[in-house]
Amino acid sequence: MVEFEWLKGQLAELSGYVREKYASRSTVHIETKLDASDLLTEVDLTVQRLLSEAILERFPEDIVVAEESGQHRYPENPDARCWVIDPIDGTQNFVRGFFPIFGISAAFAQNGVPQCAIVDVPMPGWSFEAVAGAGATRNGVPLRVSTIPDAGDARIEVDFGSRPKREGSLARFDTLLREAGALRCYGSAALGLCAVASGDSDVYLNVALSPWDYAAGILLVTEAGGQATRPDGQAIHLFGDDQGIVATNGHLHKQVVGRVTG
Amino acid sequence: MVEFEWLKGQLAELSGYVREKYASRSTVHIETKLDASDLLTEVDLTVQRLLSEAILERFPEDIVVAEESGQHRYPENPDARCWVIDPIDGTQNFVRGFFPIFGISAAFAQNGVPQCAIVDVPMPGWSFEAVAGAGATRNGVPLRVSTIPDAGDARIEVDFGSRPKREGSLARFDTLLREAGALRCYGSAALGLCAVASGDSDVYLNVALSPWDYAAGILLVTEAGGQATRPDGQAIHLFGDDQGIVATNGHLHKQVVGRVTG
Repeated sequence: MVEFEWLKGQLAELSGYVREKYASRSTVHIETKLDASDLLTEVDLTVQRLLSEAILERFPEDIVVAEESGQHRYPENPDARCWVIDPIDGTQNFVRGFFPIFGISAAFAQNGVPQCAIVDVPMPGWSFEAVAGAGATRNGVPLRVSTIPDAGDARIEVDFGSRPKREGSLARFDTLLREAGALRCYGSAALGLCAVASGDSDVYLNVALSPWDYAAGILLVTEAGGQATRPDGQAIHLFGDDQGIVATNGHLHKQVVGRVTG
Repeated sequence: MVEFEWLKGQLAELSGYVREKYASRSTVHIETKLDASDLLTEVDLTVQRLLSEAILERFPEDIVVAEESGQHRYPENPDARCWVIDPIDGTQNFVRGFFPIFGISAAFAQNGVPQCAIVDVPMPGWSFEAVAGAGATRNGVPLRVSTIPDAGDARIEVDFGSRPKREGSLARFDTLLREAGALRCYGSAALGLCAVASGDSDVYLNVALSPWDYAAGILLVTEAGGQATRPDGQAIHLFGDDQGIVATNGHLHKQVVGRVTG
């Protein structure tokens, strides 16, 4: 599709810029947002600005919804043609990460449902790509979710969110935290969803997200054969009220949804 | 010191072997231990065998204590000259990891205290090294812990352990899980401790460890200016009964220890 091919070209360029900035990240300008753990860098701002400008030049009728200020409001018509962007998902990992667990997440959506998506992971140099109905790939190689059928054997990735929302995450995931085969928290929703799509994780859980965190990732998961819903099992409209996501390999979806409490 | 220089040569060779095996890991033989998440590969076994044999040939009077079966018993004399090895710390990440978060951990100890230590991280090609009293380095560059003074601003890494021990971890860390600036779980104690030593994390917590998981890492933390104790603040003897570790940048040690419940 035309939007996908176009997006691919844009992200390839931006990925190179982010890689360069990461290599010299001790010189990157950093601000704090809500608290000392909620960071914003010049790299987030530059990627958002460049990508937004390019979208609005190429598709002037479309809407851009993006993480950083100025563009983080939901569209008036939630079903409009819309680009949903997180310029750097995992900013804390960019700044302080022992491993470079961050990526550029971008999706094109209509009717609140992603139609094509790319998560670019600059440091290993991975491009996770999906087009609705046409499958998901990493660097051109088809992705397939895992086949593990039981939460007790599953590698479950969970992000607890920042402090104000953490209480809710800990409470709602309590059963799964106790039952999971293995637990991981990497601190990037976009990459957590890529890990489910690639079969490296079996589940990704988060109840405190915004659409830019997961718009691309959920299409990767479903196109790789998995399932992504709200925590109560309902279908996802990107601009709905629920801030939660449960993404699984599909085999354990019902079990996992049943164990996330309201 | 002679033990350190000798160990360095050994790990450089083993690191190359592990890197090769990771590149072709779909062909590596894997067994489960306690459950589907507790894995053992031929790589763990080979690294342990090669390193143990080399130690006992070079230092025939010394004792080797290592993770995998046959060598996991504590020494009869807990103060003896002893090599404490985890051939692959983070085996689950080796097998299923989206990022290659695993390493070879090896320390030489006397009187239950590490005297020199190396954590080799094969995939980025990092060698974390420390000699008691002489500082810590990564690839030759001196390491220094962070200066963050408050848990509310801290990046706290925690591993919850396998299911039988998870209940205890969740309960004892409850306050810190709620209060931390950011939470991460990477699933490798050795690398979690390296991240505190390098200043990328501020705290590493785990109450369900064995000496091979942390013998090298705690020396890295203390030689980089941080602190590592038992969860109650007591000094660590590698072969003591307590299975817990609290490692911090030092500035927040007292605060963190005060919030881990007994």
